[in-house]
Amino acid sequence: MERIYLDNNATTIVDPAVRDAMEPFYCHMYGNPNSLHSFGIEVRPYLHQAMEQLYTGINAADEDDIVINSCATEGNNTVILGFYFNLLKDTRKKHIITTQLEHPCIRESCRYLETHGVKVTYLAPDHDGMITAEAVREAITDQTALVSVMWANNETGLILPIKEIAEVCRERGVYLHTDAVQAIGKIKVDVQEVPVDFLTFSAHKFHGPKGVGGLYIRNGVSLPPLLHGGEQMGGRRAGTVDVPGMVAMGKAMELANQHLAFEQTEVRRLRDKLEDALLKIDDVLVVGKRELRTPNTVYVSIRGVEGEALIWDLNQNGIAASTGSACASESLEASPILTAIGADKELAHTGVRLSLSRFTTEQEIDFTIYTISKAVMRLRQLSTSY
Amino acid sequence: MERIYLDNNATTIVDPAVRDAMEPFYCHMYGNPNSLHSFGIEVRPYLHQAMEQLYTGINAADEDDIVINSCATEGNNTVILGFYFNLLKDTRKKHIITTQLEHPCIRESCRYLETHGVKVTYLAPDHDGMITAEAVREAITDQTALVSVMWANNETGLILPIKEIAEVCRERGVYLHTDAVQAIGKIKVDVQEVPVDFLTFSAHKFHGPKGVGGLYIRNGVSLPPLLHGGEQMGGRRAGTVDVPGMVAMGKAMELANQHLAFEQTEVRRLRDKLEDALLKIDDVLVVGKRELRTPNTVYVSIRGVEGEALIWDLNQNGIAASTGSACASESLEASPILTAIGADKELAHTGVRLSLSRFTTEQEIDFTIYTISKAVMRLRQLSTSY
Repeated sequence: MERIYLDNNATTIVDPAVRDAMEPFYCHMYGNPNSLHSFGIEVRPYLHQAMEQLYTGINAADEDDIVINSCATEGNNTVILGFYFNLLKDTRKKHIITTQLEHPCIRESCRYLETHGVKVTYLAPDHDGMITAEAVREAITDQTALVSVMWANNETGLILPIKEIAEVCRERGVYLHTDAVQAIGKIKVDVQEVPVDFLTFSAHKFHGPKGVGGLYIRNGVSLPPLLHGGEQMGGRRAGTVDVPGMVAMGKAMELANQHLAFEQTEVRRLRDKLEDALLKIDDVLVVGKRELRTPNTVYVSIRGVEGEALIWDLNQNGIAASTGSACASESLEASPILTAIGADKELAHTGVRLSLSRFTTEQEIDFTIYTISKAVMRLRQLSTSY
Repeated sequence: MERIYLDNNATTIVDPAVRDAMEPFYCHMYGNPNSLHSFGIEVRPYLHQAMEQLYTGINAADEDDIVINSCATEGNNTVILGFYFNLLKDTRKKHIITTQLEHPCIRESCRYLETHGVKVTYLAPDHDGMITAEAVREAITDQTALVSVMWANNETGLILPIKEIAEVCRERGVYLHTDAVQAIGKIKVDVQEVPVDFLTFSAHKFHGPKGVGGLYIRNGVSLPPLLHGGEQMGGRRAGTVDVPGMVAMGKAMELANQHLAFEQTEVRRLRDKLEDALLKIDDVLVVGKRELRTPNTVYVSIRGVEGEALIWDLNQNGIAASTGSACASESLEASPILTAIGADKELAHTGVRLSLSRFTTEQEIDFTIYTISKAVMRLRQLSTSY
């Protein structure tokens, strides 16, 4: 039986065209781009092309920087810890605002800074799972140096009002960072339309390979590097450039943008079909208004069915889904988002995330609907509380 | 014409067997290893195998840690900046000892710490290009927290007396870090025989891919992570694991160790043949005693021949060589090592590094000898100073 992959918010299949694009750089064009001989020089046009694909992909201005790094965790740490070093020098500004929805790498780097005297506000989502621009405005003080709010949430797919938050930050003279890992390739991300100062992304979330990511830094915004060393990336990130990774990420970004319309129509149609079928089951709750979410994600809570149990049942049937963030999958805590929107203790363990991609087929969705319906019936029969 | 690659200390060709090992993880086994479904679970045995290959490769004890990261620059920064955070908490210990021979990522991260009040001693090499254990001993004070000395030098190939330095550090209760990037795959690296506390390596220096590296941390040694976030790598390095990269690095390490004898005999024989031929030219100096160097490297100074000019001439003939570190190749400074060993100003710009690998053939070396001899004649005729 062919397996079905519905965990695309955790990681994605590498598009075969992306794999083909990186292939020549292992055993043929393997030079170090910093070298002055032909092996080094011949790879540079490919890196330029990748940069162009990335700039076009998020509509960055020529004067802005995109720093190639190893993943969004590195990008996010670079911003948060970089601000710590900046904060150190200007002790009046030692306040960061972020949210309870963020990826562990934002949360943990902020917690780490707290042990070094930085004050951090973790905004709670409202009952719709949202962070409003108003909530950000109210949290900003004279001490606030940075706001960090994700563009789209990994669990629910909810798209946060980054444009409005950016306007509030501009108005108050506070820097804004956004983790756009779950937005790239799913919705339009345009840094000229939405004036963030820092934006992070990761290739493996949009059909590129693992181990390569990017950090956008607006022109004129200062930030010390996290990795000190050689002059790579204009001194903003040292280390030999991962040539195949960078080429692959450029290609993946190009393909992601080419498929954006498809994502909004076909992927959305399949997601909606799945969601409609789930909502026909009794006592089922989907978090977040459909039109406010990325088109590929549905986060569902099924009363009487533990998330882990359903995942296990689906896995036995060759379907991959998740209870939430893969980076936190080994901790069996209640879902932060379900807790945040006020779910009771029982419901907080029922969350299951199904995330599609442009590789998902109608047949796969049909089989998933059939399998979930069967599993829910079985698991509810076993349940002591339902 | 087939080109000849003699810049293996900058980066290496990926061994085709390594490329084949990583191939299945792009479009087939692409799961996130943190996921609880079959796509995640099926990759874990490959990661375990890679870990075993790495542990065996450097003879780490089971209780020690090897943290997979993106490159040696990241590993080196993790150690140096990690110590800064440790130092902050214990203000009596704010002294680091390193050397003038280190890679820019050690030098720059140390310089950065100096701007934050850390005292750094940069030991100069002696007239043989060496750092002695005695020099380290003399530099240690009660304030010293860390010594960082590379295992083998990237420019000259000189192997530093890490074992003796480790003994001095143990005796004085100071932590020892070594950048072993140029040692792995060229000479035996055994962390039980040579008791360092931290050791960094990078796959692309031993026929693995770019963008993946490792940091060895001895059992019981504390070090805060540089990247905070998920619980990957036992909490020591957050971020989705680069599955193909990690598998590739494990395979590359295994192959490197299998070829260690070949490196000591056949690669050494070809290097010696090249070196003997170079030494037959008048006014030629090779830095470092041959038996104290890695078997693949020769760093030569040819009076009257500028390094850049010779590199250019070789490149025109399809031969890739270097004037020194690729990470510093765009800065046209005099060679630090030639300056350090007391070369006059003219000689300090003549350094050329030729670095072989197990893929280098006798025919390539013969053609290189012929080409260099011709180039030296031509360039000396053009020289105003020779």
